[in-house]
Amino acid sequence: MILNFNSQSLKALEKNKRAHFINSLGGFKSVALVGTSDKVGNTNLAVFSSIFHVGANPPLIGLIFRPSPPERNTFANIIETGFYTMNHINESIINQAHQTSARYDKGISEFEITGLNSEYKDGFFAPYVAESSIQSGIEFKEKIDISINNTTLIIGEIIQVYFPEDCLASDGFIDIEKANTITCSGLDSYHKTIQLDRLSYAKPNQEITSLVNKQ
Amino acid sequence: MILNFNSQSLKALEKNKRAHFINSLGGFKSVALVGTSDKVGNTNLAVFSSIFHVGANPPLIGLIFRPSPPERNTFANIIETGFYTMNHINESIINQAHQTSARYDKGISEFEITGLNSEYKDGFFAPYVAESSIQSGIEFKEKIDISINNTTLIIGEIIQVYFPEDCLASDGFIDIEKANTITCSGLDSYHKTIQLDRLSYAKPNQEITSLVNKQ
Repeated sequence: MILNFNSQSLKALEKNKRAHFINSLGGFKSVALVGTSDKVGNTNLAVFSSIFHVGANPPLIGLIFRPSPPERNTFANIIETGFYTMNHINESIINQAHQTSARYDKGISEFEITGLNSEYKDGFFAPYVAESSIQSGIEFKEKIDISINNTTLIIGEIIQVYFPEDCLASDGFIDIEKANTITCSGLDSYHKTIQLDRLSYAKPNQEITSLVNKQ
Repeated sequence: MILNFNSQSLKALEKNKRAHFINSLGGFKSVALVGTSDKVGNTNLAVFSSIFHVGANPPLIGLIFRPSPPERNTFANIIETGFYTMNHINESIINQAHQTSARYDKGISEFEITGLNSEYKDGFFAPYVAESSIQSGIEFKEKIDISINNTTLIIGEIIQVYFPEDCLASDGFIDIEKANTITCSGLDSYHKTIQLDRLSYAKPNQEITSLVNKQ
């Protein structure tokens, strides 16, 4: 049976229920660990599911911050230092990734708490997650206030990428499923994926074809 | 073997390769069909993978539009009429959903071209996709120009939701996997999912537990 909720029923939902419901409604989400450090090297790690593609040229990625988020140290570090990392999550680290969403004091590093290892390379300021198979180094570019609900959009440019060579297709596509990257839904549900198909570029009056060699 | 691309190597990539690469890098994405109509009832349908959760109270969803997008009719209709629908995609309609990304003239409805059926209900102005199992009716709220790459962020409030009753958990979570909602990666790769776990709300000094009854 199909249920219908309208504005009134959504408003009437208890706060946590509404958070679960609305967060589920947007569909499957990108989920990644964002690594930062303050000026003196105190590291921070936080899981984000509000990451989205903004553009490919220049390569830009967006991140939504809530008004008073548990990830407030991440926000402060990005503004203070200008750099952060985005690290894909795989099945073996979902519990550790999820644990970073707890509200730790600023003095406490989620790297230490969870046992995930920080990794610095190629002179990039912010720490990567060593256990992550696809890592990006990002430079802060723009902060946009979303006044309607007091959230903040942070846009950054991807300036470093590390990824497994065997996941790169000849057309530039990265097979993130092969890299064991997972997805999430709602506030706390983690999922692995099974590729259904890759489809050819769509044009009017032309049949779509599969780009995948089906066995 | 791990490869490294930096700003220079990213800039050096051929345009389409870079689009595939950067679009893959953000992780799995929400993918949905956005249904609109102009003032006189000409319908439009376009697939979007730049959908993201903005907030639960009020229930807000964001959508990124490129400078001169194939989905330009969607943009014009949202601004002109103030209403649009977001319809989850399931395995049985991925080819039709993908076909909506072709650049059709304004006079042509992607509903007709793809054979997907439009559905109007509860007096909502914009058409839903009948084949979609989770449908939202959205009211336009805010347009934010992202000057760094001339994209536009459209924020809307969810005012109607239709979903299968048996997918709703007692805590408000919607099991979108059970509803056969799929995810995408890159520009053209579609994936179904397998839930790994739902995890309890994380707190400092407290073990995370599974919210799922594992068989």
